[in-house]
Amino acid sequence: MLHLLREIHEQPQVVDGLLSHYAAPVDEIAAAIERYKPAFACIAARGTSDNAARYAQYLFGYMTGLPAMLALPSLHTLYERPLNLAGALVIGISQSGQAEDVRRVLEDARSQGALTLAITNYPDSPMATTAQYHLELHAGDERSIAATKTYTAQLFRIAQLVSALAPSSAPRSALKRVPDLMRDSLERSVTIEGWAQRYRYADRMAVIGRGFNYATAAEVSLKVKELAYIASEGWSEADFRHGPIAMVRGGYPVLLVAPDGDLLDNMQDLFEKVRQRDGECLVITNRQEIFEGAQQFMTLPGDLPEWLSPLVAILPGQVFAMHQALIRGYSPDAPIGLTKVTVTE
Amino acid sequence: MLHLLREIHEQPQVVDGLLSHYAAPVDEIAAAIERYKPAFACIAARGTSDNAARYAQYLFGYMTGLPAMLALPSLHTLYERPLNLAGALVIGISQSGQAEDVRRVLEDARSQGALTLAITNYPDSPMATTAQYHLELHAGDERSIAATKTYTAQLFRIAQLVSALAPSSAPRSALKRVPDLMRDSLERSVTIEGWAQRYRYADRMAVIGRGFNYATAAEVSLKVKELAYIASEGWSEADFRHGPIAMVRGGYPVLLVAPDGDLLDNMQDLFEKVRQRDGECLVITNRQEIFEGAQQFMTLPGDLPEWLSPLVAILPGQVFAMHQALIRGYSPDAPIGLTKVTVTE
Repeated sequence: MLHLLREIHEQPQVVDGLLSHYAAPVDEIAAAIERYKPAFACIAARGTSDNAARYAQYLFGYMTGLPAMLALPSLHTLYERPLNLAGALVIGISQSGQAEDVRRVLEDARSQGALTLAITNYPDSPMATTAQYHLELHAGDERSIAATKTYTAQLFRIAQLVSALAPSSAPRSALKRVPDLMRDSLERSVTIEGWAQRYRYADRMAVIGRGFNYATAAEVSLKVKELAYIASEGWSEADFRHGPIAMVRGGYPVLLVAPDGDLLDNMQDLFEKVRQRDGECLVITNRQEIFEGAQQFMTLPGDLPEWLSPLVAILPGQVFAMHQALIRGYSPDAPIGLTKVTVTE
Repeated sequence: MLHLLREIHEQPQVVDGLLSHYAAPVDEIAAAIERYKPAFACIAARGTSDNAARYAQYLFGYMTGLPAMLALPSLHTLYERPLNLAGALVIGISQSGQAEDVRRVLEDARSQGALTLAITNYPDSPMATTAQYHLELHAGDERSIAATKTYTAQLFRIAQLVSALAPSSAPRSALKRVPDLMRDSLERSVTIEGWAQRYRYADRMAVIGRGFNYATAAEVSLKVKELAYIASEGWSEADFRHGPIAMVRGGYPVLLVAPDGDLLDNMQDLFEKVRQRDGECLVITNRQEIFEGAQQFMTLPGDLPEWLSPLVAILPGQVFAMHQALIRGYSPDAPIGLTKVTVTE
């Protein structure tokens, strides 16, 4: 069995584990954040982990109002002009914990007195030992080069942490529903293999989301690119209108990540614009009825809180990317020219 | 004459004007920032203006250590959960000043007591009147839909403002060299027409930069996409290694923005990796000798401070994008399906 396929299906179980066995460190870190009272957060990450960071930006803002920026690692490494991060919560996210530029941001921040946290799969990793606090992913070793279960474990760790900071306890109870929602989504994804052939010769694609699911769009786009070598681009719905939509002509495939929620009207309006330009629309949604004329749906479970939807909506995207690799004759476990750990400075 | 061509060539003159006639408001705003002592900056913008915001992120950090984040407008508009921006310097950037979501970020920030600044081409625009301070671009009306002279005017306004905050006066004197450096770069760009035909059938492209010139890579990529409908992607050098490089095969065009400076070694190393994968390399640089085997150069003037290089390195990118439009038979002044002012919520 492919590592990738097995790891995609392990995801609900990894989240089950984080819910039942590994929740205590979250409360400790949340208490430290409440004592520290950061003016803002700064999150450093690369690749897939950077997409988890984008989710964290929206979730911190939505639940607590805390502004969260993405770090600028080259200022710390190549330019040697570190940002002044005193007073900030500084978070580094990496599957391996070996991202050297991310570690340097944590090191500089800690020496400036910032509150530092690493989120990785390995408690002995350089990043985990550099930061004051560590949240472990407990995802087990990930053997496929393309990250799947460590991505959703990162999202879930972020959701646990921000829920612990939220004024109401409702978000914390909602977390318990995630594994079942993920199982439901994976069951629906078995139909993807049946129609994936249609996109065998698609060599370009745009993937659009916004708000919480800007992260999902960026991550689906990255998976499709890494696994199937499609020149795919992830865009926010608003930024896509400011220029890139010019590219959409007859048959141009546009994948919309559009679960029910506050952004649905905007996504539906963009859908109409893409249809007017004769674009080909694939939609990840639980509101098929408002995307009339879409060529393809990947359906989501019905009762899905928008702030948790990135954990569920990414799954059909991962399955779609895997099938695009398989029908093109590529090995999904070992994309050409990629390595599991990429160390950049 | 094409509006686009005329406006590309007006750029040194616009910057001349900002240097000689319109410098006073910069000092007033810099003084207000020094009094306010922001903990961080938050910059809201869309499209081309968002690329100017990326430059501002690096320049604030490099010159003053101030962390600068990109705003999350949907939290202010669609989610109605505004970020807590008290204590921050909040900047909105827009050519027209009509970006409604950007205006809403300014409005929320101002009501929270943040220090607010709009950078636009129109002092009567909604954004200009919403913010406490306004920096005018004085670029004259921009008639081509693709932004060129307003982009470099935005970069220059940012460079003027951050220079006024820098501890040394050296940056301020360096600004005076920019118009001549731009003229030199435009003169060198006349050769682009001669070889542009080679890329007539390129329908995909990656554009890579890092640090200050991540903005340039993103902006060249946007121009090429808007004007010539090439599925082009802008990437940071570090992020490109974390996955997207998988796409590079024989002949895949990769445009590297690589002026002399602290990031040159990294760009050269990435160049070697792209060459190993038989990618086609176009390089914007003033250090041709270290990119041996590149298929095409767009050369820059020699003595170019890296922090000012985005103002100069964008010019050949604009000229390249214009010629790709012309040789494909598209009208560069009116890209299909785009409008000059895009209002998103």
